[in-house]
Amino acid sequence: MAPALHDDLAPLAFLLGTWRGEGDGEYPTIEPFRYHEELVFEHVGDPFLLYRQSSWLVGDDAPLHFERGFLRPGAGPDAVELTLAHPLGLTEVAEGTISGEELSFASTSVGRTETGSAVTALRRRYRLDGDVLSYEIDMAMDETAMTRHLVAELRRAEG
Amino acid sequence: MAPALHDDLAPLAFLLGTWRGEGDGEYPTIEPFRYHEELVFEHVGDPFLLYRQSSWLVGDDAPLHFERGFLRPGAGPDAVELTLAHPLGLTEVAEGTISGEELSFASTSVGRTETGSAVTALRRRYRLDGDVLSYEIDMAMDETAMTRHLVAELRRAEG
Repeated sequence: MAPALHDDLAPLAFLLGTWRGEGDGEYPTIEPFRYHEELVFEHVGDPFLLYRQSSWLVGDDAPLHFERGFLRPGAGPDAVELTLAHPLGLTEVAEGTISGEELSFASTSVGRTETGSAVTALRRRYRLDGDVLSYEIDMAMDETAMTRHLVAELRRAEG
Repeated sequence: MAPALHDDLAPLAFLLGTWRGEGDGEYPTIEPFRYHEELVFEHVGDPFLLYRQSSWLVGDDAPLHFERGFLRPGAGPDAVELTLAHPLGLTEVAEGTISGEELSFASTSVGRTETGSAVTALRRRYRLDGDVLSYEIDMAMDETAMTRHLVAELRRAEG
């Protein structure tokens, strides 16, 4: 039996479920690419959401990116916190705000393993408009200032 | 069809699969507790493992802890890197070594959200002995020096 949603998660409840769609990636150092993707937001009854993102290249279906982490209410009434791990040898801590069905995050720290990617900061915006969840992600790296990296649109998956 | 395991993951292949068992938690600031747990290590064909940990208290089955992240080979022949997100408003970056079927990690950075837990460092050891995967996790916090926190034993789940 699914646990009841924690009251503190009501502002984030619009994210719950499985979302599938496609996105476009670009960055000054790489060729543009298109990907298909699944986002899943779940809860266990506690005041946080479990988040997982999985994407594959359109074409050869090569695995592209996988994020795993958590969202939770922050200190203020509109505050949301994000903690993420990336397979690139990175972690991401971000502070965000929620406004209706829109979330905006800016990273406050990025952790890096010895061989980790040179990402230094990220900005994320997620927005539900009708039945479409869209997002934009900007990224800065050691040698590249903050610039647009990913744009995608997803729809809630059945069942 | 499951992708082939990336050659670089051969030393970590003993972790693959789903593990279930029980553990004991303690810390100077809290009452001891017993928990049941599931660890899952998966791969997608790329040179990293996806890791997820889920635990619940023995007794009332209240959700206890959930870790999500990645392991990947590091810079040296025995080096392993770990990136994790925690629902406590924490991220963890750790560098480790692998020796046979034993892994030892020490965190090199812990990221914290504005309202995140006061954890400052972690040490982890995982060891496969026969068909038992065991681990010990030590933790330091703002006000508490590094000390034993968790000990558990798990067995590979069927199927």
